Amino acid sequence: MKPKLTLKQIARELDVSISTVSKALRDSSEIGEETRKKIKAFAKLYNYRPNNIALSLKNRKTKTIGIIIPEIVHYFFTTVISGVEQVANEMGYNVIVCLSNNSFDKEVLNLEMLANGSTDGFILSLAKETMQKEDYHHLTEVTNQGMPVVLFDRVVDEIHCDKVIIDDVIGAKKAVQYLLDKGSKKIGLVSTVDYVSVGKLRTRGYLEVLRENNVEIDDKLILKIEDMDNSETEIKDFIDKNEVDAVFAVNEHFAIYAIKAIQEKGLKVPEDVSVIGFTDGELSKRFIPSLTTVSQHGERMGAEAARLLIDKLERKPEEEESYRTVIVETNLIERNSTKL
Amino acid sequence: MKPKLTLKQIARELDVSISTVSKALRDSSEIGEETRKKIKAFAKLYNYRPNNIALSLKNRKTKTIGIIIPEIVHYFFTTVISGVEQVANEMGYNVIVCLSNNSFDKEVLNLEMLANGSTDGFILSLAKETMQKEDYHHLTEVTNQGMPVVLFDRVVDEIHCDKVIIDDVIGAKKAVQYLLDKGSKKIGLVSTVDYVSVGKLRTRGYLEVLRENNVEIDDKLILKIEDMDNSETEIKDFIDKNEVDAVFAVNEHFAIYAIKAIQEKGLKVPEDVSVIGFTDGELSKRFIPSLTTVSQHGERMGAEAARLLIDKLERKPEEEESYRTVIVETNLIERNSTKL
Repeated sequence: MKPKLTLKQIARELDVSISTVSKALRDSSEIGEETRKKIKAFAKLYNYRPNNIALSLKNRKTKTIGIIIPEIVHYFFTTVISGVEQVANEMGYNVIVCLSNNSFDKEVLNLEMLANGSTDGFILSLAKETMQKEDYHHLTEVTNQGMPVVLFDRVVDEIHCDKVIIDDVIGAKKAVQYLLDKGSKKIGLVSTVDYVSVGKLRTRGYLEVLRENNVEIDDKLILKIEDMDNSETEIKDFIDKNEVDAVFAVNEHFAIYAIKAIQEKGLKVPEDVSVIGFTDGELSKRFIPSLTTVSQHGERMGAEAARLLIDKLERKPEEEESYRTVIVETNLIERNSTKL
Repeated sequence: MKPKLTLKQIARELDVSISTVSKALRDSSEIGEETRKKIKAFAKLYNYRPNNIALSLKNRKTKTIGIIIPEIVHYFFTTVISGVEQVANEMGYNVIVCLSNNSFDKEVLNLEMLANGSTDGFILSLAKETMQKEDYHHLTEVTNQGMPVVLFDRVVDEIHCDKVIIDDVIGAKKAVQYLLDKGSKKIGLVSTVDYVSVGKLRTRGYLEVLRENNVEIDDKLILKIEDMDNSETEIKDFIDKNEVDAVFAVNEHFAIYAIKAIQEKGLKVPEDVSVIGFTDGELSKRFIPSLTTVSQHGERMGAEAARLLIDKLERKPEEEESYRTVIVETNLIERNSTKL
């Protein structure tokens, strides 16, 4: 029996990207007419069936929710899954998890697989590469056809759907204001590159609160990590080169690396330098000094996302369609990495 | 349109367990004839279609692997998923993850969902409750019908399939021998209850190596945690009540709790008491003192499991069926929680 052709195989055979195949099959004008024709002819020849979302919606009773996350070895995302599971189970839904590994192509392929009749709707946090490319056609396509999608944490305005976010700007402002209140004057920021929405928002919070307090912004005190694999070295260099009396890091790993670098420089945390992280994982709790942190409440975010999705799934057709954004409040957990 | 009936709904309607429905539909003699008849009649009335594995096998080309794990907020399992992903992606397979949350019923439901044509085979680590019940009918059923299954970490002899394990006994022996070699005489063990296979095997390693070294076994120095939520308190009591000069803990959380309890008792790690953990997560690496640990190599286990499964999926029908058990070697990583 001939195996079913996938997007990936078509892309490989015709030596074009998965995104090109996906767009061509949806007749996107972004793709030149000739390429579009070639791809569609090839797909037809091999009986490729694109997502028949309309059909699967008619039979929509898989009672299964799909989650697509960018990373799995990551405490925050596992707590979100845990929150989705709890609500889904209470409401009689199964949950399937897929990973994009921060790859745009894998996100497209996962969506193709899960939209093909095995789930009723999705909960998704965007892959880094997707945000970098700013290519959301796979998601807008799905939502346009009426398949419910809830985005969480890494969201963008371009996709119209329900969303669950935290108040990243306010969370960051709380952290930096706290440091200012304790007397810190030279506060370093360890963030991610700007195309990661949460990194950008937390950076905005840092800048806003400094301005509000009339503290001069020194670009040298802002580090934006591009390559996660190299983050420990980059943070060490940053700490070695700059004199700071506090560090605000946008995740707990960056915070721990900062503490190590500060200690290796012969300084003490929190006596010489205070450090605040983001996310509240095991590491934050158990590290010595335990980490003062902005808590993201992953489990609560997952639960909210599941509620939004199931609400949509169980909505009567005559009810009006509308999108909601739930903001889960952060709070600052004071521990031992900041001055009392 | 009438929603498709699920195992769970039949169980609820007839007020019997999911396991009873599952067994009755498979005509198991464990279920009384009257109950069996009633369940089958009900299922027929509502057009319930049990897993048609034979059918899905014929069309087996979903190119998708299912993983069912007991817990998600758990570093070891996330690294296994990561290992499966890497190999699966290289070989052109997608991966779907489901959680049993250590519940037997959820494991049965997940299996039902994934075996229904959406995956070609499974990689699974057993739920605690399944091992406690010793009820494996859902898995033997699937394997008997020729659907490839690979068990990892939490495995049992009763299920005939490919398996990936670590040498838990040898890993534990390495750890305890190391403590003895450094002069420890009263070594406490913090383990789990015996129905968790890995806890049992690591306990066996501890006992074996003490016997081999003619060290008297003191039952008071063995703690078996039943309730994970209460583990921190139980470990604190255990450390407070007993005089030990070393602790071997079967996971990194138990090890960290032990270190905290030892420090709160006014003793030092490793000067007064050495501590060794199992698994090599972020916590082990970053904790101060960093934790000497038996590394479980989750990623390698996941990669091996994926290779075994894909081998089976791509085996030609005429090749002889055989089962393999791959043992991934552990090694002791020396850090600062044990004497030099």
